Amino acid sequence: MSVITVLGAGAMGSALCTPVADAGWEVRLWGTWLDDHLLDAVEAGKPHPRTKEPLAKGVKTYRSDQLAQALEGANVVVMSVASTGVPKITEMALAGMAKADAIWLTSKGFCPDEKGIIEQLPTAIRRIAKENGYDQLPPIVAIAGPVKANECAGRKPTATIFGCKDLAVAKKYATAACTENYAIEYSDDEVGVEICAPMKNVYAIALGIADGLEEATGIPHHNLKAATFTQAVKEMSLLGQSQGAKMETAFGLPGVGDLEVTGLSGRNKVYGVRLGRGENPKEALAEMDRLEQTVEGVPAAGLAAKFVEQHASEIKDQLPLLAAVNQILESEDLPVKDVVAKAVLPRA
Amino acid sequence: MSVITVLGAGAMGSALCTPVADAGWEVRLWGTWLDDHLLDAVEAGKPHPRTKEPLAKGVKTYRSDQLAQALEGANVVVMSVASTGVPKITEMALAGMAKADAIWLTSKGFCPDEKGIIEQLPTAIRRIAKENGYDQLPPIVAIAGPVKANECAGRKPTATIFGCKDLAVAKKYATAACTENYAIEYSDDEVGVEICAPMKNVYAIALGIADGLEEATGIPHHNLKAATFTQAVKEMSLLGQSQGAKMETAFGLPGVGDLEVTGLSGRNKVYGVRLGRGENPKEALAEMDRLEQTVEGVPAAGLAAKFVEQHASEIKDQLPLLAAVNQILESEDLPVKDVVAKAVLPRA
Repeated sequence: MSVITVLGAGAMGSALCTPVADAGWEVRLWGTWLDDHLLDAVEAGKPHPRTKEPLAKGVKTYRSDQLAQALEGANVVVMSVASTGVPKITEMALAGMAKADAIWLTSKGFCPDEKGIIEQLPTAIRRIAKENGYDQLPPIVAIAGPVKANECAGRKPTATIFGCKDLAVAKKYATAACTENYAIEYSDDEVGVEICAPMKNVYAIALGIADGLEEATGIPHHNLKAATFTQAVKEMSLLGQSQGAKMETAFGLPGVGDLEVTGLSGRNKVYGVRLGRGENPKEALAEMDRLEQTVEGVPAAGLAAKFVEQHASEIKDQLPLLAAVNQILESEDLPVKDVVAKAVLPRA
Repeated sequence: MSVITVLGAGAMGSALCTPVADAGWEVRLWGTWLDDHLLDAVEAGKPHPRTKEPLAKGVKTYRSDQLAQALEGANVVVMSVASTGVPKITEMALAGMAKADAIWLTSKGFCPDEKGIIEQLPTAIRRIAKENGYDQLPPIVAIAGPVKANECAGRKPTATIFGCKDLAVAKKYATAACTENYAIEYSDDEVGVEICAPMKNVYAIALGIADGLEEATGIPHHNLKAATFTQAVKEMSLLGQSQGAKMETAFGLPGVGDLEVTGLSGRNKVYGVRLGRGENPKEALAEMDRLEQTVEGVPAAGLAAKFVEQHASEIKDQLPLLAAVNQILESEDLPVKDVVAKAVLPRA
């Protein structure tokens, strides 16, 4: 039986255990020092506090000081911690990652190196490996798509995509991990899959703004929301292409699909609703922080803008919605409707 | 001043009057014999009964027996009646249409000819013209995109697309009709724009099903909805390509954008919600009929299936969601969740 070790016992890490356990893998779930309360709950037989679903049967849990045991003999290692934790956990787990057949990646984000260069997560993982003497890592499989963790953990119908530069590897794992309720497309477009993952959080803020305008005025702004959605997808495709991704990746599950699910609910959208209602961006964020609601799209927006400056400055003008979101986040009292409308209404 | 005559005084026809009037055109709105009560209201200074917005200032209204006057000297004639009315109104208005510089088309649908061959609306219009001795019609501009009529009439931010085989014509009118709140992209892909227009109504039923499942069970099916959305967009792109459209047209305003807005509200989505809640498809449709809520996606689904048989049978297997919707509509008590999930979850 193949062994898979999931690093990070949060919502997505624990949720992923369900399909892979159902597909017949030996599944190990390792929690960081921040995850002890989550593992306390599931080890006591309670639902996972984030997904509200029980951990899949047979999944073995490991505490932060049991990393070596968790990684021992693992065929696949899954990086599933918050993006800010990726460098540290990569360093800690490198020995096991290097020995595995593949590294899966559900963490989403951009990662700054020590000099402030913004990298995609697979690039950062490979760089950190090299800096630590591991010149070769196994193939990285970027996992994205419209997957709300609680639904995945609860075996609701879910479709996702595995993107790996080696298509045969993507296909192999897509075949080996799919279940009746967890369908997996595969692609050789690691870059395209991985660009969409953090960007859709940024754009979900803009979708929320349209909803917030409706709440504030009683008047639907559905046309604006749909134009925003379309522009967001276009920008994800363009940004991906600038990094070597395929045009169509953003038009599938990682872009269109994930933006749809992220715009239906979630903290990025909720934050956008607050902005659309007219709340001050910084105060609204502070209040969500107090409620322990991390809004991933906010740091991602800033990192994405820097990423564009550094790696895709030639298409900066073609990403007006990304610029608009950043402008709104950095301001105190912009007319958000006008700023978004100006970005998404094409001028003939 | 250019003269534009809109044929059909329903929601979309009357809504379109707002931006073109704002853009400085002389606008005439002609109502069919079914539209008298609508024109009664707006002529009395009341809001249009469908959009709840007043008719734009300066728009002249014409009754069904004033078609010749309405068309006299028109530079642009807009076909804006229900798709089932297109053949009849085309015959009646041909003389004026032939003399115009362009025909715009906001009607959405497929049209069967007398032998039962299903055509796209521009094809049907050109055929009817020929049958009536007009071998040459001016260019047809297909108009689609995420435009809820009431928001367009109320000058809410709206983006649309003009598709004409002659790109210069599309560009000319996109430039001449856009306003601050009505932005117009242009494209030479008449076919692609026109394929998306009816298909998105079909697929909005499927999106509604996911929402109905949530209503019935209390459990969100967001992952399923997002996978359905992605598959719908893919099928619109494939069907368009089979007819010579560009792959990316469905990924822009006519496909992604219009599906987003149609999935937010509207009768097709509402009907889908009923199906997702477990209502009998035929009884639910009959009840909506009684409430005078036409569900355009239902006849469009059947016509689309026939269109595929006749014109795109080689890709039939690549349109499982279209097949699933038809299967559900024709059945009494299928497990709708399983039927949709089977269609939209990719098998690795």
